[in-house]
Amino acid sequence: MPDAVNASSHHVVIVGGGFAGLWATRGLASAPVRITLVDRGNHHLFQPLLYQVATAGLSAPDIAAPLRHILRTQRNVEVRMATVTGIDRNTRCIALADGSMLAYDTLLLASGATHAYFGNDQWAAHAPGLKTLEDALMLRRRLLLAFERAEAEPDPERRAAWLSFAIVGGGPTGVELAGTLAEIARHTLREEFRNIDPASARVRLVEAGPRVLSGFPEALSAKARLQLQRLGVEVMTGTPVTHIDAAGFHLGARVVPARTVVWAAGVAASPLGGMLDVELDRAGRVPVTADLSVPGHPEIFVAGDLASVQQDGRPVPGVAPAAKQMGRHVARVVRSRLAGRGAVPAFRYRDLGNLATIGRRAAVADLGRLHLSGAPAWWFWLWAHVFFLIGFRNRLSVLLNWTWAYWTYQRAARIILDPPGAGSDEG
Amino acid sequence: MPDAVNASSHHVVIVGGGFAGLWATRGLASAPVRITLVDRGNHHLFQPLLYQVATAGLSAPDIAAPLRHILRTQRNVEVRMATVTGIDRNTRCIALADGSMLAYDTLLLASGATHAYFGNDQWAAHAPGLKTLEDALMLRRRLLLAFERAEAEPDPERRAAWLSFAIVGGGPTGVELAGTLAEIARHTLREEFRNIDPASARVRLVEAGPRVLSGFPEALSAKARLQLQRLGVEVMTGTPVTHIDAAGFHLGARVVPARTVVWAAGVAASPLGGMLDVELDRAGRVPVTADLSVPGHPEIFVAGDLASVQQDGRPVPGVAPAAKQMGRHVARVVRSRLAGRGAVPAFRYRDLGNLATIGRRAAVADLGRLHLSGAPAWWFWLWAHVFFLIGFRNRLSVLLNWTWAYWTYQRAARIILDPPGAGSDEG
Repeated sequence: MPDAVNASSHHVVIVGGGFAGLWATRGLASAPVRITLVDRGNHHLFQPLLYQVATAGLSAPDIAAPLRHILRTQRNVEVRMATVTGIDRNTRCIALADGSMLAYDTLLLASGATHAYFGNDQWAAHAPGLKTLEDALMLRRRLLLAFERAEAEPDPERRAAWLSFAIVGGGPTGVELAGTLAEIARHTLREEFRNIDPASARVRLVEAGPRVLSGFPEALSAKARLQLQRLGVEVMTGTPVTHIDAAGFHLGARVVPARTVVWAAGVAASPLGGMLDVELDRAGRVPVTADLSVPGHPEIFVAGDLASVQQDGRPVPGVAPAAKQMGRHVARVVRSRLAGRGAVPAFRYRDLGNLATIGRRAAVADLGRLHLSGAPAWWFWLWAHVFFLIGFRNRLSVLLNWTWAYWTYQRAARIILDPPGAGSDEG
Repeated sequence: MPDAVNASSHHVVIVGGGFAGLWATRGLASAPVRITLVDRGNHHLFQPLLYQVATAGLSAPDIAAPLRHILRTQRNVEVRMATVTGIDRNTRCIALADGSMLAYDTLLLASGATHAYFGNDQWAAHAPGLKTLEDALMLRRRLLLAFERAEAEPDPERRAAWLSFAIVGGGPTGVELAGTLAEIARHTLREEFRNIDPASARVRLVEAGPRVLSGFPEALSAKARLQLQRLGVEVMTGTPVTHIDAAGFHLGARVVPARTVVWAAGVAASPLGGMLDVELDRAGRVPVTADLSVPGHPEIFVAGDLASVQQDGRPVPGVAPAAKQMGRHVARVVRSRLAGRGAVPAFRYRDLGNLATIGRRAAVADLGRLHLSGAPAWWFWLWAHVFFLIGFRNRLSVLLNWTWAYWTYQRAARIILDPPGAGSDEG
């Protein structure tokens, strides 16, 4: 049990309820601190499965859980749904959008990442990314609507453009989206249209580098490519996109018609890094010291996708396990300081392996010495994801949906919802 | 197997994929007709459970299924996602929002109902209704946000206003919403806040008439009222609302502060009735003859909430079973005509009973000679709804969610999503 937690306790403010922020919060459960966890939404999101919401395989609540609910029994934490608008390092206060201020003794910034378009932000209107539940639902709507539009389109060229999909970026997200989209076109929607054959849809995965899954060993990249092609995905490597607009994507002079383009090619750190008024790296991330604090400001920590950590000459990747490990480490450091113990060993990221799934029975898994591909990789992926999901009910629900999808090729969440204020007629 | 279905077949156009439209479509599966089912959305919605999505108990895809998927094996139907903008009875064409026209031999209008504010449409901004999935998700967002706002509000009077909820209209929808909301406040959210006690929320059910559930026998109305009060709902009957604004609802000179007001008090027919250029009843519904066709236009049928049918001096209610029966009847009439058979007996609504649920173990059921209340009614309600849901997967998922909720008082879908284009700061 923590020491009496009252207004005079050491106040830890944590911004961001993702993997880093949540694991830091839990790590401080028995520490003599008062915690305020600030998030602009009300839920913790299991981002690795966002692409499943985007492809209508799961519903939004399946992969998210309210932060208040997750933390309800942790008495020393208060959850605050709010947006941070400023950070004052001198007075040790953060400003919130509703006009109020929060004073902190220790601050942890864990607000994650958003999309980055390499300086071409105007592409965002035509090629949305996939970082939040709202992104996923909007993408789901666009994917399903594309088939509806194709069905109603009498002109063959325009119909083909509606049935042309492009995913930019050959990392795990792009690979997972492309494989799933191909499955939807060739299996899920098979009998359901009268004027089009959904299986004739073209799904292109466009990657600037020489191979997909560049973070994986080459042999697994090759297997992934093969599995994608077997699913009907056209894999275009060594193909940097030069422009994106409503017609499609451009490769220099050549325009490839595609009414639906998805951006899975780059992320940038949350704008909170800029509010710190320290030097940032090229992606807007905050370089941190060995204990994950800001140089010169031991009371300010950064963890997760917002942090820039170098290890053995390479940056620690922006993946969920890294964020969790960082969050836990920050909690360890804070506890150690308050107990007057010596410094904690430097943070070291343990790479537990990489997984990417490609459709219902294919995947690749890089587990260090063990490389899996095909069905064994897929089963490993499935159980790992279910295990790491928060909440028993979510695990049950996701298992139910996936079992259903596996046997029937059906997808559980194929509902098109109007965005508020918009009609259902959009170009 | 239907006769060869080709472009010269009798073309039936059905507008609306709800209960009436869907049951009419299915009823024509083996008829020598070509069917186009037009809906502005892509899904069939199980409306009786909308309040569950609104109160975060179920996710949107749990109670909806894509029309294309439901009808995929019915070869003589084509599903068209479109909005109807006009009806020309002379040329026998309907106009769609995308500019195209659909010619029909037989037309069935089954586009249902929307909210009605008795001439006070400006109340809609402060007291949204519950007719579509979009309504339900917006309401869910407002309900969950109200508790978040209360938690962050230092002023006691404003906090109390955020914790004050009002549902206007004591029919089944209002009763179900009120009971569920009270459960959420007193049980689901119990440990999760630090500055407020959610159980102190005030939930008022405001009904202009003398009793709730006026369509039920008096004894059951009384039982429902008791069950509501046991849940902590303040039932205000004989209380007509005179005005609604951002502060709350007005009863003459008295203003009752309530930041969240929900409208469950009245429906009006879809605007498609007006496009027919015939005389409508007061609620905008289309009066129909004994075979559910428009007087003077035997080729135009109206079914479901859009139809005004008198039976034994009383209007047939706008409930799901009535809509299904009407849809089936229209299909029967059309088949009979095409086969050259005599007229089908007049439509007659069979009232199979009324159900309303009030919280997790209470309900009332009017099954004619049999009246149930309390736990037996609730179990009947549960199995009836699960049975009538479309789709095995949906039934499984809903059962899972309800079983979970029953044992834990938890609700499966408590996710607040930003509407596109809006920030999360709203007053």
